[in-house]
Amino acid sequence: MSGNSFGQLFRIHTFGESHGHSVGVVIDGCPANIKLDIKAIQFELTRRKPGQSKITTPRNEQDSLEILSGIEGDITLGGPICITVKNKDQRKKDYTDIHKVFRPSHSDYTYHSKYQIHASSGGGRSSARETIGRVVAGAIAKQVIKKFVPEYDTIAFVQSVHQVNFKTSDYKEWNTIKKVRDDTEKSIVRCPHAETSQRMEECIVNAKSQGDTVGGVIQSMTYNTPVGLGDPVFDKLEANLAKAVLSIPACKGFDIGSGFSGTTMLGSEHNDAFYHKNNKVRTHTNHSGGIQGGISNGELIVLKAAFKPVSTIFKQQDTVSKTDLTKTVYKPQSGRHDPCVLPRAVPIVEAMVHLCIVDSLLKQRALQLNA
Amino acid sequence: MSGNSFGQLFRIHTFGESHGHSVGVVIDGCPANIKLDIKAIQFELTRRKPGQSKITTPRNEQDSLEILSGIEGDITLGGPICITVKNKDQRKKDYTDIHKVFRPSHSDYTYHSKYQIHASSGGGRSSARETIGRVVAGAIAKQVIKKFVPEYDTIAFVQSVHQVNFKTSDYKEWNTIKKVRDDTEKSIVRCPHAETSQRMEECIVNAKSQGDTVGGVIQSMTYNTPVGLGDPVFDKLEANLAKAVLSIPACKGFDIGSGFSGTTMLGSEHNDAFYHKNNKVRTHTNHSGGIQGGISNGELIVLKAAFKPVSTIFKQQDTVSKTDLTKTVYKPQSGRHDPCVLPRAVPIVEAMVHLCIVDSLLKQRALQLNA
Amino acid sequence: MSGNSFGQLFRIHTFGESHGHSVGVVIDGCPANIKLDIKAIQFELTRRKPGQSKITTPRNEQDSLEILSGIEGDITLGGPICITVKNKDQRKKDYTDIHKVFRPSHSDYTYHSKYQIHASSGGGRSSARETIGRVVAGAIAKQVIKKFVPEYDTIAFVQSVHQVNFKTSDYKEWNTIKKVRDDTEKSIVRCPHAETSQRMEECIVNAKSQGDTVGGVIQSMTYNTPVGLGDPVFDKLEANLAKAVLSIPACKGFDIGSGFSGTTMLGSEHNDAFYHKNNKVRTHTNHSGGIQGGISNGELIVLKAAFKPVSTIFKQQDTVSKTDLTKTVYKPQSGRHDPCVLPRAVPIVEAMVHLCIVDSLLKQRALQLNA
Amino acid sequence: MSGNSFGQLFRIHTFGESHGHSVGVVIDGCPANIKLDIKAIQFELTRRKPGQSKITTPRNEQDSLEILSGIEGDITLGGPICITVKNKDQRKKDYTDIHKVFRPSHSDYTYHSKYQIHASSGGGRSSARETIGRVVAGAIAKQVIKKFVPEYDTIAFVQSVHQVNFKTSDYKEWNTIKKVRDDTEKSIVRCPHAETSQRMEECIVNAKSQGDTVGGVIQSMTYNTPVGLGDPVFDKLEANLAKAVLSIPACKGFDIGSGFSGTTMLGSEHNDAFYHKNNKVRTHTNHSGGIQGGISNGELIVLKAAFKPVSTIFKQQDTVSKTDLTKTVYKPQSGRHDPCVLPRAVPIVEAMVHLCIVDSLLKQRALQLNA
Repeated sequence: MSGNSFGQLFRIHTFGESHGHSVGVVIDGCPANIKLDIKAIQFELTRRKPGQSKITTPRNEQDSLEILSGIEGDITLGGPICITVKNKDQRKKDYTDIHKVFRPSHSDYTYHSKYQIHASSGGGRSSARETIGRVVAGAIAKQVIKKFVPEYDTIAFVQSVHQVNFKTSDYKEWNTIKKVRDDTEKSIVRCPHAETSQRMEECIVNAKSQGDTVGGVIQSMTYNTPVGLGDPVFDKLEANLAKAVLSIPACKGFDIGSGFSGTTMLGSEHNDAFYHKNNKVRTHTNHSGGIQGGISNGELIVLKAAFKPVSTIFKQQDTVSKTDLTKTVYKPQSGRHDPCVLPRAVPIVEAMVHLCIVDSLLKQRALQLNA
Repeated sequence: MSGNSFGQLFRIHTFGESHGHSVGVVIDGCPANIKLDIKAIQFELTRRKPGQSKITTPRNEQDSLEILSGIEGDITLGGPICITVKNKDQRKKDYTDIHKVFRPSHSDYTYHSKYQIHASSGGGRSSARETIGRVVAGAIAKQVIKKFVPEYDTIAFVQSVHQVNFKTSDYKEWNTIKKVRDDTEKSIVRCPHAETSQRMEECIVNAKSQGDTVGGVIQSMTYNTPVGLGDPVFDKLEANLAKAVLSIPACKGFDIGSGFSGTTMLGSEHNDAFYHKNNKVRTHTNHSGGIQGGISNGELIVLKAAFKPVSTIFKQQDTVSKTDLTKTVYKPQSGRHDPCVLPRAVPIVEAMVHLCIVDSLLKQRALQLNA
Repeated sequence: MSGNSFGQLFRIHTFGESHGHSVGVVIDGCPANIKLDIKAIQFELTRRKPGQSKITTPRNEQDSLEILSGIEGDITLGGPICITVKNKDQRKKDYTDIHKVFRPSHSDYTYHSKYQIHASSGGGRSSARETIGRVVAGAIAKQVIKKFVPEYDTIAFVQSVHQVNFKTSDYKEWNTIKKVRDDTEKSIVRCPHAETSQRMEECIVNAKSQGDTVGGVIQSMTYNTPVGLGDPVFDKLEANLAKAVLSIPACKGFDIGSGFSGTTMLGSEHNDAFYHKNNKVRTHTNHSGGIQGGISNGELIVLKAAFKPVSTIFKQQDTVSKTDLTKTVYKPQSGRHDPCVLPRAVPIVEAMVHLCIVDSLLKQRALQLNA
Repeated sequence: MSGNSFGQLFRIHTFGESHGHSVGVVIDGCPANIKLDIKAIQFELTRRKPGQSKITTPRNEQDSLEILSGIEGDITLGGPICITVKNKDQRKKDYTDIHKVFRPSHSDYTYHSKYQIHASSGGGRSSARETIGRVVAGAIAKQVIKKFVPEYDTIAFVQSVHQVNFKTSDYKEWNTIKKVRDDTEKSIVRCPHAETSQRMEECIVNAKSQGDTVGGVIQSMTYNTPVGLGDPVFDKLEANLAKAVLSIPACKGFDIGSGFSGTTMLGSEHNDAFYHKNNKVRTHTNHSGGIQGGISNGELIVLKAAFKPVSTIFKQQDTVSKTDLTKTVYKPQSGRHDPCVLPRAVPIVEAMVHLCIVDSLLKQRALQLNA
């Protein structure tokens, strides 16, 4: 109810402020007796952590997970799994000025208006550190899905940064999951196309050098989703994915399949014709993005998430302050911020997709007569 | 849990198949002792109903609401409000062929896979008739919001049809809610700009004449939302709006504020500078779309919803059938379908926005010390 | 959230006031493609209906169900099932006086305080007519359970009326479900022991003749529940059953297994020793009432529900009125009320048990690796 | 959904096994900007902790709370509050035998059947240590309630132990909350009547000396509840209280107001006549237990909770084991168990009542027009 939970059967509750004791997550509804690969969970956290490359914030956090409950050795017990990560490099002083002024396009003003209080340092709950719990839970969700659907996978990558676009038809390896993943991880931007990745990196470095920031688009592709996931009418799979993606900090848009560009097509162009192959019903095109009538049809689930440029820039801006509503200015003197969130947002998008899929999958098992 | 409910405190449950006895909605959590304008609810239903103009389906439904519970005279009792609309013009025979073949880009295949059964006529739950319950509930939600925030309103309009775009800067009346509404309702397409509306209408008529269909974009603007609505982190106001909008049939994309186009801006261009006017904190620009950190900031909430072209076209298409998975073809002989859903989707988008706002508003009242 | 829903995966929403248009229920989460026995649903409604014997209220209602959605022919479609029953014998004038005075131990005062309005006739939502939706949903739930567990059954019966107790050890047929059911239904009180039933009937008739009312205890026994239902720690099976039972109008107490009487036993007397028979783990005694640690252990689930005497008596009582808070008196001139709710509450208790079991069963299927 | 959460607006999630790293709770929905008395929270934990007297288990735990999130200094931030208590005195070896055999009336068999795995030491989630999170959350809930209703309080006490009954009419101080609380806390049994407390203590010591255990009844009284809390029909206040109480380990029964004993009264005896005093509507008697029609009426909320005798006895018992389903015997050689849970269950009952009240209170604020 109060906004810090996601999912229904596989339900997560994140907690923690960016400069408090810890951030973490409670996962309720993870099936019992599953042997987890704990290193794989930590691996995802490391993909998300700050300081991983020259284009990410220099905040120095190891982000090592600590298991408080629900797992014995590496086996799930069926009870709630609580995993935390301590906040170490907090530097409370870095942020002393931010509570005097409302930083433009940050949540300072809205949090203050809603709660009449704000964490004294850092972004509190609006910090990207909150997503640590999502990444942990997503990594576990993926392992649970693979117990039921071994060939399942979701890969996200950066499709654009500012005005640098990755034309996905320029890349030829989409059908080899491992290759896509390896090529994506080789790139510090997380774009599998080396040449485009290089241009994106230059774009980010350039913005950073000017104290400015850039946004972009992440695309996510889910392979081998079983047919039948998603619940009409309000819990359509794409509706849950949209909510999942829009709940990520800085996300401003969501597309499934043809999305906005599909609005300029004719019905006769857009319809995905069915055919039959290897005992499966398939579609020739995939403008539907793997979901029809809110239910997965077995094709690749393709979605896009738009991220705005980071709000923290190192330029002077007009604003007002909590104590003086007349005009003031704001310019951070220093700080540890990403010039572009997209590279680190890739594992977060993947995590949110895993969480949607695992929840739909468990629900589907509950209601099918012959599950 | 099972997908037919939306909202938490102001919670709705829709029910009904397109060719069954009735469609309807149960609304639980409507405050007691509110005097409703029943005609205003019926008015919204009439905006959504088929056959309202030459560019909508000729299915002949009056869509008159019937109140089964929760309202006495026109006063809410505090208990669940059940309102139904009977299905009258069902013509079961129109659809006898559709259950032999899986119509391309319809939900026939996925419903069949998920449920192993499908309503014998029409789209069942995937029909747009399901949205009747949403429009009824949304109309009540709006009246509830206005009890607390009299100046509240949401207006949606058609921003594009196929390749016809309405450049919103060409229209000058955005600040006069009544004028925007009147101009929108004057247009059978529901675009407030008369000249663009005319071109959109021609585009739809032209597609129809060729047995084809078109999609487009609806924009929604919410005026006078109180500051403070929305719940970090998963129930951010934009996340709930995204889910609400993506749950509408045929919707494939969602944008809040600058959305996808904001991804090509620099942070220094995108940030919304605060200023102070008439004892209120305001922003000069509104790339945030009225929401920052998941919480409304009092500016106009601006969102876009992308709708694909309607799947029912009157052209022969390749497909497979339930009984024969090898190739077959499908061409509807007749039928009553919209060549473009957008004009009728406008009140549905508005309804979903009302439902998000009323729920956040009630939640906010619960948790504020000085509500 | 707002109190008119029960269950999570198999979720019901009841609606309707006693003197409004209809009462009914929406059931969301019923698996698709189940062939229902509609007559069996109507049969349960008829067990609950007024006027069924000389010891029940003479309100004349046929309580015939009408299916609005979710079922085609007699097959479930997987969407929400809406079933209504019209209110026919409303006699609004019978109740004109009750809204001037707060009838003692009725909900008049609390509803008025909470909602500042009350249905102008009858009890509104606090009427026992609300339970029609529960009985319909429970009857469907039972049929769903039996698809998975054919030997499942729940039988409730009247264990005491006022000071007339049925000593259950006096009855020898507990192991023959059909016999218990037949003997119970033969009795207009719904006590399977003919001699005790006769004494209970006399007690009720006697109270009625004096314008007074009586309460009592219903016992429910669930046969052949699968091992493993119920979710620690807050959704323990007995916790859900307790809520289910206490939500029935006039219910004031709940016992599982040894219940209150078990509090006077020693641990060495109370513990249920395990043994092994026919490849099953069983217990010699069943003080646990079929649930241990919140999870069913496969033994008979035995619970008791205490019902207070009906509040509507035909004697003059002191009270206050809405318009005059100083002393007034209340004496109904006529009216159609049960002198004892227990006979008609038996199918309601059964329905609530079915609803708890079906929900736990579906949840268990979702989370088991090898369901 | 998966059983470890309670409440809707003020929602808690407990986690942790008895012999794992920590136990704890996440509280979501606590209003922001409330100054908490942290010592008062720890005080309740200390009332619950083991080893507090000669009649409680000698397990040696300080049970010191640690705040991970949601509170800065002592002020709530509006985000989720995570509080943990480390498990220190775990003695894993104490329990090595218990996973070979199914201890009678414990959850060993049902957990094993449901999850196919069980925490290797201790009771895992079925341990009473899980209730630490409830007590922490309840203590915070109480402080939140008192922000809105300063005169609110709930006091529970032991009403019976085995066959020793406290006749509450023998105690004369019920109207002085502080006196009742002081007298209760003076007693190691937590019965405010000194002479009865002495006899209860003797009863417990006697059972312990024989390696046996005893149960009993706890009564809880809630003072100064606002009129209007509770939501018909399924979330009646007594239904929520029943679930809350039955979710406590070892609880087997629940009574509200007259409860089971009210079933032998006539309606004319049982009805609570209204009168008017000091501008308030009151009732002369309180057989309703402060709740009518599921909604609080402002009178004392009186409930009872039945607790069975503790299952761990130091006597040889017949049972079966996981590996050998034929007969075996079980006798704990040592262990640290309470001979009677009631003294330590008193603060847990209070906590569960606070949690029900705070949730109803926040919900009521959301839906009232003039809150």
